[in-house]
Amino acid sequence: MSRIVTFTTDFGLQDHYVGTMKGVVLNINPEASLVDISHSVQAFDVLDGALTITQAYRYFPSETIHMVVVDPGVGTARRPILVTTEKHMFIAPDNGVLSLVYERESRLSVRHISAEHYFLQPVSPTFHGRDVFARVAGYLSKGVEAAKFGEEITDFVRFAAPRAKAVNERTMRGVVLKVDKFGNIVTNITPQDAPTLFQAAPPAFKIMLGSHEVSDMKAAYAQGAPGQVFAILGSMGYLEIAANRASAADILGVKKGLEVGLIFEGAGVAAQPGS
Amino acid sequence: MSRIVTFTTDFGLQDHYVGTMKGVVLNINPEASLVDISHSVQAFDVLDGALTITQAYRYFPSETIHMVVVDPGVGTARRPILVTTEKHMFIAPDNGVLSLVYERESRLSVRHISAEHYFLQPVSPTFHGRDVFARVAGYLSKGVEAAKFGEEITDFVRFAAPRAKAVNERTMRGVVLKVDKFGNIVTNITPQDAPTLFQAAPPAFKIMLGSHEVSDMKAAYAQGAPGQVFAILGSMGYLEIAANRASAADILGVKKGLEVGLIFEGAGVAAQPGS
Amino acid sequence: MSRIVTFTTDFGLQDHYVGTMKGVVLNINPEASLVDISHSVQAFDVLDGALTITQAYRYFPSETIHMVVVDPGVGTARRPILVTTEKHMFIAPDNGVLSLVYERESRLSVRHISAEHYFLQPVSPTFHGRDVFARVAGYLSKGVEAAKFGEEITDFVRFAAPRAKAVNERTMRGVVLKVDKFGNIVTNITPQDAPTLFQAAPPAFKIMLGSHEVSDMKAAYAQGAPGQVFAILGSMGYLEIAANRASAADILGVKKGLEVGLIFEGAGVAAQPGS
Repeated sequence: MSRIVTFTTDFGLQDHYVGTMKGVVLNINPEASLVDISHSVQAFDVLDGALTITQAYRYFPSETIHMVVVDPGVGTARRPILVTTEKHMFIAPDNGVLSLVYERESRLSVRHISAEHYFLQPVSPTFHGRDVFARVAGYLSKGVEAAKFGEEITDFVRFAAPRAKAVNERTMRGVVLKVDKFGNIVTNITPQDAPTLFQAAPPAFKIMLGSHEVSDMKAAYAQGAPGQVFAILGSMGYLEIAANRASAADILGVKKGLEVGLIFEGAGVAAQPGS
Repeated sequence: MSRIVTFTTDFGLQDHYVGTMKGVVLNINPEASLVDISHSVQAFDVLDGALTITQAYRYFPSETIHMVVVDPGVGTARRPILVTTEKHMFIAPDNGVLSLVYERESRLSVRHISAEHYFLQPVSPTFHGRDVFARVAGYLSKGVEAAKFGEEITDFVRFAAPRAKAVNERTMRGVVLKVDKFGNIVTNITPQDAPTLFQAAPPAFKIMLGSHEVSDMKAAYAQGAPGQVFAILGSMGYLEIAANRASAADILGVKKGLEVGLIFEGAGVAAQPGS
Repeated sequence: MSRIVTFTTDFGLQDHYVGTMKGVVLNINPEASLVDISHSVQAFDVLDGALTITQAYRYFPSETIHMVVVDPGVGTARRPILVTTEKHMFIAPDNGVLSLVYERESRLSVRHISAEHYFLQPVSPTFHGRDVFARVAGYLSKGVEAAKFGEEITDFVRFAAPRAKAVNERTMRGVVLKVDKFGNIVTNITPQDAPTLFQAAPPAFKIMLGSHEVSDMKAAYAQGAPGQVFAILGSMGYLEIAANRASAADILGVKKGLEVGLIFEGAGVAAQPGS
């Protein structure tokens, strides 16, 4: 049985950390198939880790094991957990890094990993990726049942994803979730938040980012004129601000966390479920 | 059947993009063997992508499937293509990123990938790496025949690699193709362009890079004196300007795209086929 | 037989080099399982390569083949070597990059790889990773015996790891071995060097880094107050200087190679085997 194990961490690739974790998994199951999702989650940034794993995990085959190690609390009382959903398994610290997975999945079992005989002894208080999480991933990939690792819990940590909010019937306020490698500015505004914005012929609108205003919508990056910054529905399912063959984030000087305003010129078009 | 799929993109490793594409391939064929060539192709730079895949693909086993996604035109009318050569298969946008493969391969079939039932629906206009290319790679790796994905075309996009040009019998003009990780300056001058330069005892020469002059040839990096910048025949098959345990590009302040002059002191030695 | 081959290099991931080496291995053995330890060893830095492979290799299964290519002398008379230990195999240039492996392993055979018919011909004088090391890794992973590649040697290059030194009974002097991705400052002081420092209640101490003084010891990163810099026993087995959710190296302006002083307030506590 070859089993897929994915890795999502903030460990970077410059040190031995990621390679060491892979060695631990392979030492238990040399047939495991290891896939990096990203090791460039922003250091200590649980929300960034949550966004990364949530965008990727559902494209993997059933029974994939996803290790998510963004773990500023390593060595403290925060619990290691093992989460099983209908199709996937997740191993992570219980710090909310799986919150967006919890949002998407209706069937969910969360276990506190407490079976220390699966751990690498002595457990270092600074590298549970190696001594705890990779070990559990290895044994899971060998077919050890989830129930063997610990009891189910219900008080696991979860946070709500930051959602765009309707301010009034013309105005919505969101935030920049991330800037991607191309300099695309990913906001948290979705088609559900602002359905008319993504229509074939959207009503007139302005998107405010600091002192900048964006009022064009394109369907593909290459539709933008040189130097033009425009709005687009990105592949993550969010409103993005982008430029054609250029970094919108550099052009506008925008970073993660900036507030985003969406203002429709006409009234009554901003609908927002759940606000 | 385990089948190798390689990835060459400008997506970087910081986001979920690469991991997501791998999930898509594995979801179709969990036995596929996935190999990164590079995800650090210069953003939107089709020539840089062409150089990268061309240097790597021929070292892989027969029937390897190479995904090359440098795709500034994603979501527009540019076609996705499937290229089969005697030994390899390539999936890419039809923007010339395979031009240097076309140059090397005498037997070549290029197909317009049009069989949309293989795509992930709905196809995002901004991430065909996930919704089109990875899907096709997955099905190809499962043994679906190339002909199933679309018709052969002959009007595919190709560009000529930038070649060094003889100016007169003493002088040749080339360009910096890239600067590698070590700061080696890779030009487009080959042994075919300037055979005498790479002889055991080359005639006197000067290489001009901006205001800098290089007039020594070494066979190995470690033959250079500390701080010395010299010429060398690099492993890509091009004339490189390098330094021993140091970055020639930093020392000289040279970047990709700079014009390179090669001037022989004596006459008649610069021969250039095809100029 | 699927066999694991690991890669530790200073090649970076931006060029085609790593992908090309993987192609060479897979061309010989398509069933090989390839794992990156790191490609971000500091360029030309043999000690950094030694630290990286030594931290990782022992977590891999028996019979793993480790390629370690930090090779500033490529193309010169430095020998390619094949090292077998009780459980592992290593392929590297004979420049000391395996010195820390030699320190850990009691049973050791070192061979000069001289069987050129295994190499890719012609061998480039600038890329033995592709033409020599990856080829040997491929054939080893197919089951070719170590003895086929060359004769045993005993005059292989090895250097002593830089060790912390007791200056007097209160004072010890070490060095910063590396700064990791999180900005943790990894010194070469071990629990063997300073056993009392890592006791549950260590005696009063000061760690001097340039003009900075650190006098707190924590067991986990998250025990540090915001902005506080403290000492901790890191997962590499060395004294580290760290900060909670922040880069100690940035806070203190510390780089690799800086001298580290450890001064106990009371007498007689610094014991150092082997000084």
